Amino acid sequence: MASRSRALVGSVIDASTTLLASQTHDVVRFAMGAPSDDLMPIELLDHYAAARASGKYSYGSSEGEPALIAQILERLAPHAGGDPRRITITTGGMQGLDLAFKLFVDPDDLVAVEAPTYTNGTATALSYGAQVLEIPVDESGMDVQSLEQKVRDHARVPKVIYTIPNFQNPSGVTLSRDRRLRLIELAERWGSVIVDDDPYGRLRFTGDAIASFQELSPRDPRIFSVRTFSKILAPGLRLGWIEADSSLQPLLINAKQAMDTCTSVPTQVAIARFLADERLETHLGRVTDLYHERKRALRAAIQRTFGHGVTVTDPDGGFFLWATFTRDRVDTDALFQIALKEGVAYIPGSAFSITGSFRNSLRLSFATSSPRRIDVGVHRLRAAVEQLGHPRGPYRE
Amino acid sequence: MASRSRALVGSVIDASTTLLASQTHDVVRFAMGAPSDDLMPIELLDHYAAARASGKYSYGSSEGEPALIAQILERLAPHAGGDPRRITITTGGMQGLDLAFKLFVDPDDLVAVEAPTYTNGTATALSYGAQVLEIPVDESGMDVQSLEQKVRDHARVPKVIYTIPNFQNPSGVTLSRDRRLRLIELAERWGSVIVDDDPYGRLRFTGDAIASFQELSPRDPRIFSVRTFSKILAPGLRLGWIEADSSLQPLLINAKQAMDTCTSVPTQVAIARFLADERLETHLGRVTDLYHERKRALRAAIQRTFGHGVTVTDPDGGFFLWATFTRDRVDTDALFQIALKEGVAYIPGSAFSITGSFRNSLRLSFATSSPRRIDVGVHRLRAAVEQLGHPRGPYRE
Repeated sequence: MASRSRALVGSVIDASTTLLASQTHDVVRFAMGAPSDDLMPIELLDHYAAARASGKYSYGSSEGEPALIAQILERLAPHAGGDPRRITITTGGMQGLDLAFKLFVDPDDLVAVEAPTYTNGTATALSYGAQVLEIPVDESGMDVQSLEQKVRDHARVPKVIYTIPNFQNPSGVTLSRDRRLRLIELAERWGSVIVDDDPYGRLRFTGDAIASFQELSPRDPRIFSVRTFSKILAPGLRLGWIEADSSLQPLLINAKQAMDTCTSVPTQVAIARFLADERLETHLGRVTDLYHERKRALRAAIQRTFGHGVTVTDPDGGFFLWATFTRDRVDTDALFQIALKEGVAYIPGSAFSITGSFRNSLRLSFATSSPRRIDVGVHRLRAAVEQLGHPRGPYRE
Repeated sequence: MASRSRALVGSVIDASTTLLASQTHDVVRFAMGAPSDDLMPIELLDHYAAARASGKYSYGSSEGEPALIAQILERLAPHAGGDPRRITITTGGMQGLDLAFKLFVDPDDLVAVEAPTYTNGTATALSYGAQVLEIPVDESGMDVQSLEQKVRDHARVPKVIYTIPNFQNPSGVTLSRDRRLRLIELAERWGSVIVDDDPYGRLRFTGDAIASFQELSPRDPRIFSVRTFSKILAPGLRLGWIEADSSLQPLLINAKQAMDTCTSVPTQVAIARFLADERLETHLGRVTDLYHERKRALRAAIQRTFGHGVTVTDPDGGFFLWATFTRDRVDTDALFQIALKEGVAYIPGSAFSITGSFRNSLRLSFATSSPRRIDVGVHRLRAAVEQLGHPRGPYRE
């Protein structure tokens, strides 16, 4: 084995997909960061998947199908000025992260990540030998002052700053405009790359959108944006894109050719047509309302059930609430198996940090369950907490 | 940029896909290692792509959909004893190679490859810092005696031996049974892994099949087999699998989670059903006869057109002929642009070696063109050679 294989840490989040697939009893799935079947346009996706098109089962260009790139430029990246060299199609957002860290990270380079964060991103950075620097998150996203302080303490600048700016996974918080501007300044000063991973930005249900890194600093070669259709459409497709400086595209192509040659051509053809028929706008209009309803249902159920014993974030979009047991020490790792037996799944907080922090917290996705199921799930979660017990006696309101 | 980015050399083969897609004039495509549209079951693939299935647009398990793994075990890997832990689904054969080299290659490790070889495999090894040792190929595949000699000369053993045993890309030759057995012995002695990349083995049209590495040395932990549906079904799908020791699967899962989370679920669902309905057997019966016809047409056209000026291999299967100008020094790199203008595309020999050898050779795929188009293409190739000129005067029979 290569020594790198010791750094292949895997993903608690992805492993839970497999674990849940093997459950035969009824489980309310707060674990999955994915839309439920009823919030995906399945009939339309099947329809477009069967569309006749010449060459759709052959190899495609490594940078992606021109028709799909054109639709992305028109509908999802209007700030890119119509330049196809800024867009490279990827096999899901995860491949965008793999490309980012493969291109930018030498062994022992410092990568700054949020804590908590989407640890699949961290795992990819580790697989290329990165040293990871965890920066705390508050209600305005990554604490940029803390980042500056840690860089001073370490007397080392990060090669990459990895951030999920909107409705962050797992916390649900959004990076403020001021902090985005400050990160752009710091990246310029330090010679860092901002890996801007934004799967959820289009899923805003309340409040005003905050300008993206790409909008705040147009054509900034230090901004590497990773995007995906997984959350706005369907994760099973494994389809995403990168927006980055056009000078990077030849290298992205070379790197992608050593990964998977090109992304599925029939999938690209289907989604290009789906987009051309203006189906995405209709779809997003429908689902954001439903996600909003589900978020309110989940927050209300938690507050009703746990009262002041649990604090919970209040995101303006996306999929996730971050809940923390504030009064009693509830070990959410230990709770997991009991909860699963009770019929409710979530992701323990420790899965979102490489140091195993956040043992008192958990990520709850409201994307997968109807309000009625959400109530059932929170009820089961309470039953699990009562069974667990904890240092201050059984849980009680 | 990471220093690794200098090792991202890209692929002449893949770049030709993009180049050809941009041509507006009529081009006979001897370049592509891919079936033509009429040799893919397009209507059936569209049909299965539209099949209803619960959860097909959600995330799947990183190791692959159980239904697809079961079909592969039954139909394509019967020697695996029905053990699903030996099979991991990949996003095409290329991801199988990416996983192999990511798992096994430390920077400066030696990787033995065939010369000529499929340089996308070499490029992936280079992207992980490998040192590449080129081993010549003759009519019985990799010259294993030469491998042993070079290992003695370097006083270093290879970490990985990368071979394409059947109807090799680009030469079309097949590794003999004796050499397979010898490689298994050497891998054991040296502690090497054999990366057994066999996209074409099921496309045999003449002669008897030679036992695979997996059949010759069952459950050998040193054999890592990379397989794909690209050549036997359709490359645009980006679907393949690894057969490897079951103890490796947890690491393969971890590594894949840092690459693309899971392979396209709708694609896996569609192909599992295609296989369950015994469509692959019917399909392969039809296409191997047609590939045989196309190979004979291409060999006959070359011999008729170039006579003794060109030698050409005579594969028992697969997609490729390897042609070498033996009498005159025809620079196939320089010839390429002239040929493209004349309306015929191929891959120059130099694309199949990291040292740019084989300038006098070229790879011709017979997979993409009907016998009539093959005649047109060879006629245009002759016209291009005549225009090129060469040190011994214009080409003549």
